[in-house]
Amino acid sequence: VTVVSASAALVEKGSFRHFMEKEVHEQPESCQRTLSAYLDPVACAVRDDIKAGIDFSQIVRIQIIACGTAFYAGSIARYAFEKLAGLPVDVEVASEFRYRTPAITPGTLAVAVSQSGETADTLAALRWCKEQGMHTAAVVNVHSSTMAREADLMWPTHAGPEIGVASTKAFTAQLSALLSLVVCAARQRSRITAHEEAHLVQVLLGAPGLIAEAMAMDAEITRVTYDLSKARDVIYLGRGDMYPLALEGALKLKEISYIHAEGYAAGELKHGPIALIDENTPVVVIAPDDALFEKTASNVQEVAARGGRVIMITNVPEKVPALSGDAGKSLKVITAPSCDAFIAPLVYSVPIQLLAYHTAVHKGTDVDQPRNLAKSVTVE
Amino acid sequence: VTVVSASAALVEKGSFRHFMEKEVHEQPESCQRTLSAYLDPVACAVRDDIKAGIDFSQIVRIQIIACGTAFYAGSIARYAFEKLAGLPVDVEVASEFRYRTPAITPGTLAVAVSQSGETADTLAALRWCKEQGMHTAAVVNVHSSTMAREADLMWPTHAGPEIGVASTKAFTAQLSALLSLVVCAARQRSRITAHEEAHLVQVLLGAPGLIAEAMAMDAEITRVTYDLSKARDVIYLGRGDMYPLALEGALKLKEISYIHAEGYAAGELKHGPIALIDENTPVVVIAPDDALFEKTASNVQEVAARGGRVIMITNVPEKVPALSGDAGKSLKVITAPSCDAFIAPLVYSVPIQLLAYHTAVHKGTDVDQPRNLAKSVTVE
Repeated sequence: VTVVSASAALVEKGSFRHFMEKEVHEQPESCQRTLSAYLDPVACAVRDDIKAGIDFSQIVRIQIIACGTAFYAGSIARYAFEKLAGLPVDVEVASEFRYRTPAITPGTLAVAVSQSGETADTLAALRWCKEQGMHTAAVVNVHSSTMAREADLMWPTHAGPEIGVASTKAFTAQLSALLSLVVCAARQRSRITAHEEAHLVQVLLGAPGLIAEAMAMDAEITRVTYDLSKARDVIYLGRGDMYPLALEGALKLKEISYIHAEGYAAGELKHGPIALIDENTPVVVIAPDDALFEKTASNVQEVAARGGRVIMITNVPEKVPALSGDAGKSLKVITAPSCDAFIAPLVYSVPIQLLAYHTAVHKGTDVDQPRNLAKSVTVE
Repeated sequence: VTVVSASAALVEKGSFRHFMEKEVHEQPESCQRTLSAYLDPVACAVRDDIKAGIDFSQIVRIQIIACGTAFYAGSIARYAFEKLAGLPVDVEVASEFRYRTPAITPGTLAVAVSQSGETADTLAALRWCKEQGMHTAAVVNVHSSTMAREADLMWPTHAGPEIGVASTKAFTAQLSALLSLVVCAARQRSRITAHEEAHLVQVLLGAPGLIAEAMAMDAEITRVTYDLSKARDVIYLGRGDMYPLALEGALKLKEISYIHAEGYAAGELKHGPIALIDENTPVVVIAPDDALFEKTASNVQEVAARGGRVIMITNVPEKVPALSGDAGKSLKVITAPSCDAFIAPLVYSVPIQLLAYHTAVHKGTDVDQPRNLAKSVTVE
């Protein structure tokens, strides 16, 4: 008698308790593999085959179409495409895009983003774009998927098989691919010199090391997640490309811990959601030391003044404003590695994933198979 | 001795308990006044002075910039501008737009939307657009405001003074103005004939009557709001232009009842938020009888299958799928007046406002002056 299937699955997790934990920790390798497919570390440039496959100088706009976590990866990439490559980008959830009658500008490249390459709404949107005669591309982790086959251009991610239903390494692999393409676009559109290209490529190639360094935040994070697991509602705040990352952080927590987390652009706080803030609603603030740090820090003070408990993730704990009274006592600062703003979405993905993971473990939910959710949504 | 101030304020509320309730009920008049500024009921056409002020055929794109509720008004208008006028529209929260480096397409008209015309982030974004040499317009309720003065073009709303902090009649006045401008744009861009223009103008001019009719939903709504006031979390779902209306509905509930409500595109449900659904999380579904009704109804069945309690707002109660067991018992259907899909955002604004209002009244919160919130956010 040979019974192996269950134990084989356990072995695959190695020393990790869940596939999600294992996949979070695989990200230095999965990002490295993905970046290597786009960037030449010797020439310090975007690979020739990537440059040969597309000419971003001929592209007027990009329309990114995706669902769930992939939609947030696209939303983050939008900031970089517009800022560094001067290339306008629209990002829309596929189930909205496909059923309305969008006004498409001629010369728009449609980019579908999907781990499985089979997501029903994204695939239908991609097909609609093809029917309109648009040039299409697909950023997919499954390279033999329907989207990979049907898009004019396949931009692979190399995350490897992702078992946890809540996406982690597939998300950062999407970011790695998209940020590499931003460098390609910026160069082809003459927004950066060869020297600047080399610098950005070096910054990107340094991301896996910083992602590995970010894993050390685990200990600090576990010190706040017991409290977080008792919360019923959590607000995530960020500005700039940390805003879609805040949305992704909230989605992660929602998916695996069933805590009602919601992400907001920090500047929108005063336009409504601040009414929710009291001592029972923790606020997670993602605030790297960039041009917007002071603005976000001032939002933290507003939250604290209303009794909110703040968990601040930043590389500059010394710059976090001192809060008096209970707010000061309840403020938790989690220190992230310092990094170039260009790769901050990659580095700060780690703490938001670990935050969701450890909170769910404290709650005792089924991390790898959360209720109601399927890994790939291949029906409408 | 004469003491009048307090009672004067009471008199102003008339027979209503709160300014918000009064302002919700003023919407037939405030929308009528706003529509009259844009539409000629005799000629059944967009007014000549509106047409003379702008030539949408010369405009390549629209960039709407706004905060909070005004952002959702802009997001709703986007669906109509793209579908009926073939005019691409981007909508962004002002606090994000102003601090990133957006890639602007030449020929883009910047449209700021703000009740007060003084919202700090929106004003800063408008000024940035002017500095870039963009043509600018402002949709404002205060016609002497800074935005009204500084924008190249002022498109007024005629909601009258709004006292309740949670915006209601200013929102539907913004929708009235923007949907009128959609007709103007569709005609100037030769997407519709004069005959079709006349039809859409008639549909719009019929909205105040339907808004008045929608007030009759009050009785049905109060039958569900006691239960809703006991909820800690609520999900709002919609598709198409009912998606941003779902976001606005969630914001209303958040603002005045402090219940953590969140809006989602119904098609995104399976990509994460469905994990939240259990018998403790009511789901409000906005589903007029349009091309997307069947899709939304199928989302309702998914929610019900997971124990979720559904409140469905629709004009076709007979088409709501029969749910078995507990889901069937807990399903509440609120019947809305039938209307043309073009003005559904105006008509369905009423039930979502009343839902938030009565829930807050049951909870006993300060409806007109919710905690932490200011009427106009004139500081960053």
